[in-house]
Amino acid sequence: MQTEQAQLDRLFQSLADPYRRAMVTRLVEGPASMSELSAMLHLALPSTLKHLQVLENGGMVASSKQGRVRTFAIDKQGLAAMQAWLTEHQRQLNAGFDRLEALMRATPEENEP
Amino acid sequence: MQTEQAQLDRLFQSLADPYRRAMVTRLVEGPASMSELSAMLHLALPSTLKHLQVLENGGMVASSKQGRVRTFAIDKQGLAAMQAWLTEHQRQLNAGFDRLEALMRATPEENEP
Repeated sequence: MQTEQAQLDRLFQSLADPYRRAMVTRLVEGPASMSELSAMLHLALPSTLKHLQVLENGGMVASSKQGRVRTFAIDKQGLAAMQAWLTEHQRQLNAGFDRLEALMRATPEENEP
Repeated sequence: MQTEQAQLDRLFQSLADPYRRAMVTRLVEGPASMSELSAMLHLALPSTLKHLQVLENGGMVASSKQGRVRTFAIDKQGLAAMQAWLTEHQRQLNAGFDRLEALMRATPEENEP
């Protein structure tokens, strides 16, 4: 449970940065190398790597190495975990509004003489 | 655009903490006062307030004051903005996989004699 919470911390944290969101926006279209991402964002290689590591720790991105080139791709599990969290909370929120609505419909009748 | 990016930063950041997620989990069931949330999480009032302010800045939570009691409730716009971001990226990701699948279906035919 502790680990799951820490993983959710890293997941949400990984998207709390415009460069990292831009990387995800690029990577949902297909894998890319670090230098491609670095050029696209006009970001130095060390900064690019740092951001990619945050995304990888968050579970949003996975990397693989072929020869000297490391390629980054979307990790579908990260998006899925975030989607699951949101959907569950949206569901609870809607259920709450439904209860409130039912209550508001019920109340006038009780006040009738 | 700058403002929109900064708002998304604050939105994702606001959920990168287990106490703040627990507050959201409680608030999707209905509004609560600061002292209710403080008691539920065994958290001092100043820490509770600090976390609630981060959630309010992120657009996840809204507050209103009646007399001396400040009540916090879910701001549906925050959840909706996050949902919109995720849905768009999920859609792009699926489109990418569809393209890849089409490519893989096409390739064997090209290799046939």
